[in-house]
Amino acid sequence: MKNHAYYNPENHGDYELISIGEFKLAEGGTIPNLKLAVRTLGILNEDKSNAILIPTWFSGTSKIMEDAYVGSGRALDPSKYYIVIVNQIGNGLSTSPWNADESIAKSKFPNVRIEDDVKAQHTLLTTHFGIEKLELVVGGSMGAQQTYEWAVRYPDFMKRAAPIAGYAKNTDHDFIFTRTLMDTITSDPAFKDGEYDSIDSMKAALSRHGDIWNVIGYSTEMWRKELWKQLGFENALSFSEGFTQAYFQPMDPNTLLRCAWKWQRGDVSRNTGGDLKAALGRIKCKLYCMPIDEDMFFRLADCKAEQEMIPNSEWKPIKCDWGHLGLFGMDANYNQQIDDTLNELLALDL
Amino acid sequence: MKNHAYYNPENHGDYELISIGEFKLAEGGTIPNLKLAVRTLGILNEDKSNAILIPTWFSGTSKIMEDAYVGSGRALDPSKYYIVIVNQIGNGLSTSPWNADESIAKSKFPNVRIEDDVKAQHTLLTTHFGIEKLELVVGGSMGAQQTYEWAVRYPDFMKRAAPIAGYAKNTDHDFIFTRTLMDTITSDPAFKDGEYDSIDSMKAALSRHGDIWNVIGYSTEMWRKELWKQLGFENALSFSEGFTQAYFQPMDPNTLLRCAWKWQRGDVSRNTGGDLKAALGRIKCKLYCMPIDEDMFFRLADCKAEQEMIPNSEWKPIKCDWGHLGLFGMDANYNQQIDDTLNELLALDL
Repeated sequence: MKNHAYYNPENHGDYELISIGEFKLAEGGTIPNLKLAVRTLGILNEDKSNAILIPTWFSGTSKIMEDAYVGSGRALDPSKYYIVIVNQIGNGLSTSPWNADESIAKSKFPNVRIEDDVKAQHTLLTTHFGIEKLELVVGGSMGAQQTYEWAVRYPDFMKRAAPIAGYAKNTDHDFIFTRTLMDTITSDPAFKDGEYDSIDSMKAALSRHGDIWNVIGYSTEMWRKELWKQLGFENALSFSEGFTQAYFQPMDPNTLLRCAWKWQRGDVSRNTGGDLKAALGRIKCKLYCMPIDEDMFFRLADCKAEQEMIPNSEWKPIKCDWGHLGLFGMDANYNQQIDDTLNELLALDL
Repeated sequence: MKNHAYYNPENHGDYELISIGEFKLAEGGTIPNLKLAVRTLGILNEDKSNAILIPTWFSGTSKIMEDAYVGSGRALDPSKYYIVIVNQIGNGLSTSPWNADESIAKSKFPNVRIEDDVKAQHTLLTTHFGIEKLELVVGGSMGAQQTYEWAVRYPDFMKRAAPIAGYAKNTDHDFIFTRTLMDTITSDPAFKDGEYDSIDSMKAALSRHGDIWNVIGYSTEMWRKELWKQLGFENALSFSEGFTQAYFQPMDPNTLLRCAWKWQRGDVSRNTGGDLKAALGRIKCKLYCMPIDEDMFFRLADCKAEQEMIPNSEWKPIKCDWGHLGLFGMDANYNQQIDDTLNELLALDL
């Protein structure tokens, strides 16, 4: 196993690498030995009926999902549920450009789609854990994309779904936003088509990458109300550099790029020949659509348009002036709304 | 006079280059012979009381202001008013990095502030035109920044002011957004600290610059409603490249950078030692605050907070799903609201 200064258990807590063998991808490539980094909490009950699945978002790992969403007294309580957090393919912990076999390492890493993640997770749950039904699938951002894909692709597999701050079908705006994120990396001469000499040589590019997150990742209300003060920063610019840019600087550029490519193309209507309404109409579980009101790229109006096409769904927007990156759970009021909404959903007798 | 493939009368219509001589800048530099590119329409009446001043926005020139805002039957009607459109310093037509004396050419062009533009325009109006009072100052975006600066710095000089889609004091969010625009240019190895070999060598950088405008310059409603269809494009990506990126590709990178630096630092509270309320309290004219409701960076809430500090002001938001770049006037409904609002303002007996 190779070592990485950022993607390791010291930074990302306990997880188990579980191989599901050779994995054929929707785009035609193959991952010879797909290992999923999986974090579990709680105890799977005897009839295997208390499992909750949490997929991960762009740049995130199981660590942030555990820290921000799971805990005793929270809605996602390991004393009640068996919680399975699966790191998405290519996120740095699961099989990724930096740790993959030489045949698909770095710039050779194949294109992965949201549906590949969901298929791999389905294989993992059924073959490794013997789970055939989930109490809930819940995820934010790219985790929401996977949640929607789960609900459309395997409509009988879960009782409930809670996509937070994400789309079932990505928008043009979001595609282009992601393109600007990718361009900060690929335009850097140190990138060398993915064969950069070191992460350090890409620091300037990753800082620019983080800076675009400063503009779109939070909300203008966050900046106006200077919520960064809550994190102990002295001024807006020191927060923009010391928090947002610094967050991305140690990450692997190929990892970010492959996940961004996947994010851009999230689209459940691939299940139905491009018919989004038909795809969303397949959903059988109870679904709570949970966008963040001040999100600048997973927007309320776009989320609402999707939610209205989902038969058994409810509109549950979350108020959060942090915008999209409120997902990180730095706002107690956000966390309370998440717990209240998920508690309500989990309490439904389905 | 040097020639430029983009900044010329063929592309930007008639204008006169008017020298106001040596010009000392707020940041300490000097422009040896400042020439302002000025477009006038209509006839200045005998007592010189029918003048309207229009400053320009980032990347724009007098041409777009004339095309989108001035005309017979419009509120800004040259048959009634003497309309003076002044291209901002460094915008490509007025003295700019590409056309300046060698001592301040290209990378040596000094930093210019909004207040420098306003002082230069004041000199132009009083000494060249003999105008001592304006019926109206009206401008969008950086033109709004100049409009606010005019109203604070020379409160007796105008009867009315109409800042459209801009701030009196720039926000942290907007500063960082502009930084990402600048970074697309300065991070390119072809930039060579402003001494690039040709505009063509900077085409990729300018395309990336334009792409960030795709994300923030319009609104997510524009993308959701596919308003780009109105401009004849086949799909969102062809519009993003063929319209937005193509718009910036012929521009001079140094010109964009100097104007962006200026934009970042627009702040009328420099007149009052940092006290924004005191600065806005100086305004004597009737002011209509005209933000665009779907603008993603000159936001309603931030504009409202400023408007509430202006004694003789009214809140006049404009509905436009195009977002900030609705300023270009491609939406007839936007143009109608602009005309209705400015007509109302101009009809006031002051």
